[in-house]
Amino acid sequence: MTHAPAPAAPAGETPRRGRPGYDRETLLSVCVEVFNVHGYDATSMGTLSKHLGISKSAIYHHVASKEEILEQALARALDALEEVLAGAAAAEGPAVARLEQVIRGTVRVLVEQMPYVTLLLRLRGNSEVETRALERRRTVTRRVGELIEQAQAEGAVRDDLSGRSAARLLLGMINSIVDWYRPEAGDTTDQLADTVVGLAFSGLRAP
Amino acid sequence: MTHAPAPAAPAGETPRRGRPGYDRETLLSVCVEVFNVHGYDATSMGTLSKHLGISKSAIYHHVASKEEILEQALARALDALEEVLAGAAAAEGPAVARLEQVIRGTVRVLVEQMPYVTLLLRLRGNSEVETRALERRRTVTRRVGELIEQAQAEGAVRDDLSGRSAARLLLGMINSIVDWYRPEAGDTTDQLADTVVGLAFSGLRAP
Repeated sequence: MTHAPAPAAPAGETPRRGRPGYDRETLLSVCVEVFNVHGYDATSMGTLSKHLGISKSAIYHHVASKEEILEQALARALDALEEVLAGAAAAEGPAVARLEQVIRGTVRVLVEQMPYVTLLLRLRGNSEVETRALERRRTVTRRVGELIEQAQAEGAVRDDLSGRSAARLLLGMINSIVDWYRPEAGDTTDQLADTVVGLAFSGLRAP
Repeated sequence: MTHAPAPAAPAGETPRRGRPGYDRETLLSVCVEVFNVHGYDATSMGTLSKHLGISKSAIYHHVASKEEILEQALARALDALEEVLAGAAAAEGPAVARLEQVIRGTVRVLVEQMPYVTLLLRLRGNSEVETRALERRRTVTRRVGELIEQAQAEGAVRDDLSGRSAARLLLGMINSIVDWYRPEAGDTTDQLADTVVGLAFSGLRAP
């Protein structure tokens, strides 16, 4: 038997890291890791090339620029968050149930797409790509605020605070997950979502 | 009358920006602004010099390095947060009242020291100064968790979630304030604190 060189991994499979033959998916995930450690602005294509173990021109085979990597990574997070809202908008039932669905779905996206959402949450808006992403993020917040207002109109949510402030504080609580939650710590995502839903609707006070 | 050149601003007064004669306070506040826009790692002493309108050597008159500016700025945020906890620890009364005191105090610090806390919350831990600051931040979270556990032991806070998770989610909600709250929008800090305390203890559900 002859030892032929390993074929390039077909699309959809994950090749080993540090090897040539990256698929777009793995390249994206390594780059996002580097952005999250060093900051997007402080990361050069040279730094990415070193971490990927491939030349800059090999990176340019996949993407036109560092900004295109950022754009794709942000789309990953934003598409997932918007999908959660679309699912809730399409659902039947009272607004408060759809709000719970949004909370659970958002927690799930944060855990499953953690590096991509982390990148999104740390954006400063220093370029057009960043500004557009922040605008999509603001729209998500606004729609959560509208859902809270519907739940207020139905009498299920207290009306002594604005839907917009409530949405921001609620999403602030949920977004903090990317800073401290580590899936390997034992809890499942469902347990985490239960905790967040419990706190969001009933607060800390003992019943 | 002769027009004598304006004297350098005495310590404690705020000289106009872009002029020589910065006091340490103003220098710190301009640098923190720049760090928050561009990211600490991506900001050079040259960038700071341009924004301050003074030479690098004039900056070195005040501080030994960029990292010393970071350290002083982080101390500003951390000292204020730790003072809130110390105040609550010294107070009489049940843990749940002291927890409310911590929530109100933390909201106030976030509003009053917003640029400094923003810098703290965006740290990645890429140097010893950052690591030490993150350790102090973790200690703050741990102490809030312990206060929640005391309130649980007193029966005032529900005990179906760990003090540590509750502290992280609660502080996550509070910390989001630096991302969206703008004091000029009409609300006072006390109103914001009322909203946060209400959500934290009673949640969104209509009573």
